[in-house]
Amino acid sequence: MSGTNRQIRLAARPVGEVKPEDWEHVTEPATAPGEGRFAGRTRFISLDPAMRGWLDDRPSYLPPVGIGEVMRAGSVIEVTESEHPGFQPGDHVVGTFGVQEYVVSDGKGVLKVDPALAPLSTYLGALGMPGMTAYFGLLDVGDLKEGETVVVSGAAGAVGTMAGQIAKVKGCRVIGIAGGADKCAMLTGELGFDAAIDYRADDVRKALRELAPDGVDVYFDNVGGDILDAVLTRLALHARVVICGAISQYNNETQVQGPSNYLSLLVRRARMEGFVVFDYAPRFGAAARELAGWIATGRIKVKEHVVSGSLDDFPATLQMLFRGENVGKLVLELT
Amino acid sequence: MSGTNRQIRLAARPVGEVKPEDWEHVTEPATAPGEGRFAGRTRFISLDPAMRGWLDDRPSYLPPVGIGEVMRAGSVIEVTESEHPGFQPGDHVVGTFGVQEYVVSDGKGVLKVDPALAPLSTYLGALGMPGMTAYFGLLDVGDLKEGETVVVSGAAGAVGTMAGQIAKVKGCRVIGIAGGADKCAMLTGELGFDAAIDYRADDVRKALRELAPDGVDVYFDNVGGDILDAVLTRLALHARVVICGAISQYNNETQVQGPSNYLSLLVRRARMEGFVVFDYAPRFGAAARELAGWIATGRIKVKEHVVSGSLDDFPATLQMLFRGENVGKLVLELT
Repeated sequence: MSGTNRQIRLAARPVGEVKPEDWEHVTEPATAPGEGRFAGRTRFISLDPAMRGWLDDRPSYLPPVGIGEVMRAGSVIEVTESEHPGFQPGDHVVGTFGVQEYVVSDGKGVLKVDPALAPLSTYLGALGMPGMTAYFGLLDVGDLKEGETVVVSGAAGAVGTMAGQIAKVKGCRVIGIAGGADKCAMLTGELGFDAAIDYRADDVRKALRELAPDGVDVYFDNVGGDILDAVLTRLALHARVVICGAISQYNNETQVQGPSNYLSLLVRRARMEGFVVFDYAPRFGAAARELAGWIATGRIKVKEHVVSGSLDDFPATLQMLFRGENVGKLVLELT
Repeated sequence: MSGTNRQIRLAARPVGEVKPEDWEHVTEPATAPGEGRFAGRTRFISLDPAMRGWLDDRPSYLPPVGIGEVMRAGSVIEVTESEHPGFQPGDHVVGTFGVQEYVVSDGKGVLKVDPALAPLSTYLGALGMPGMTAYFGLLDVGDLKEGETVVVSGAAGAVGTMAGQIAKVKGCRVIGIAGGADKCAMLTGELGFDAAIDYRADDVRKALRELAPDGVDVYFDNVGGDILDAVLTRLALHARVVICGAISQYNNETQVQGPSNYLSLLVRRARMEGFVVFDYAPRFGAAARELAGWIATGRIKVKEHVVSGSLDDFPATLQMLFRGENVGKLVLELT
């Protein structure tokens, strides 16, 4: 193997929004895989809100990305060279391979995928971590039951589009909260949500009062902040608030805004629960098969936002997430 | 029946701390019970943190006390006159009879109690709502398991003293948080808590780091505010945060302080859940029998703070709660 590997490494811990100078663009020689390993070229890189948390030096469910380390990311690679019996050139593999063009792997914790069954990018979205997050967050943590009223925030994002559609498959009434009229029209049109609230234009609390007069049974929260507080005022008895993320708070330079209305958990005998999708890994296969079935029959539509470019486009593409510029799963395709 | 009834009625909705002028001291003629009813004299009146919430005009688990209405309170009365077949003069009865000297009741929703089995005041504390709140909050909502580490805030209060001791009976390691060295010494001495943190003198977060190095499995929260935020930083995996109350926030004139560290629920796969003790009413009898057994065998000690006086002492006695001046269950005995 000869040639080079380009990488995006963390240069400095960001304060607030991630800035271009927080990244280092590095070129290093590409090394041959060696025995028991394979090498590949990166095709698609996943961009996720959780990435912001990985950059902060505080205890979390994964250690922070170290200064000087390649940025952590899920990606789909195409195997180019292999000294591993389980992988052949031409195979496509999903794993946490990082933001780099060239990858060497021993095959642990990775998954071979078939581009004939679904577009490669889908393995980072609907059939990947965002799909798993929506599936287990809603069905296991949220303990969703048929006929319930479900509210999803960040509803036009990778997880939100899936969570809302899974709730529809399960026979629930679904209200999405998203930023902008276009996203809201997409939710109620193409994706079949029962209603959508544009948090930039609407009074969320008033809209919820009208759209969910009997209260919210399950709230799938991707955003935190004022929207979480608004939904807390509208909980039904025994409601479940699923804490999936808090994108509105990730770039805060001061402390996170806590939910001032949390005492409605007491009044409504409700619970708020967090989860980390990796805990459900033993059930990913079964969940992916069920999701793939719903996709194949058109009950769930896959929304992806593919940015085609080079590795150097990673920083700007990541910013799109925090500015709400993507619809559905955001991926960077290396062309 | 002749004579008069003295009552404490709500004169105005308090803003912040309840002030003397928010109450009206009224004397009205006492009326005979009439057919199917009984009348009685109030012996003990319960004072509870939840009373502050009942004074605010906002949706909750009970309607607010109306302006001009007798203040809601649990009490023990002694029957003086009866035209109800189930109650005889000399009987003692617990019910939500309100802050008044003379009570007429049709017997619905009340409970006859036996002063030979326990002091009358205990039916408002360890064997009453505070005992039930500790029991169901810890065992049902908190899903407590033997060997776990439990933290109780407001630990020297009516609910806290019971919650901590129940957790000890269940074989847990118990850390109490209370205000003042005397209260803390009482917790670790007389009540057998494993450790106590004086939130007025100690750095709660630091103390928890030392006292619960492996994290907190169940946090029974009576106080909210900064202490809730401190415990959230120390949750064990799959921890349960039981939201019983938030006495630090009840007199706020601005909005409630939301828990800024609520995202640790996600990192620690933990849940925060509220409850209202009245939901467990069908099981009160069985719980009271179990608690009475633990009290009889000395495994649980009953802590009561009895203020002896007249009905006019109610407003000042209520203030003691919010100033943390009571140890254990606070009751007003009419002498």
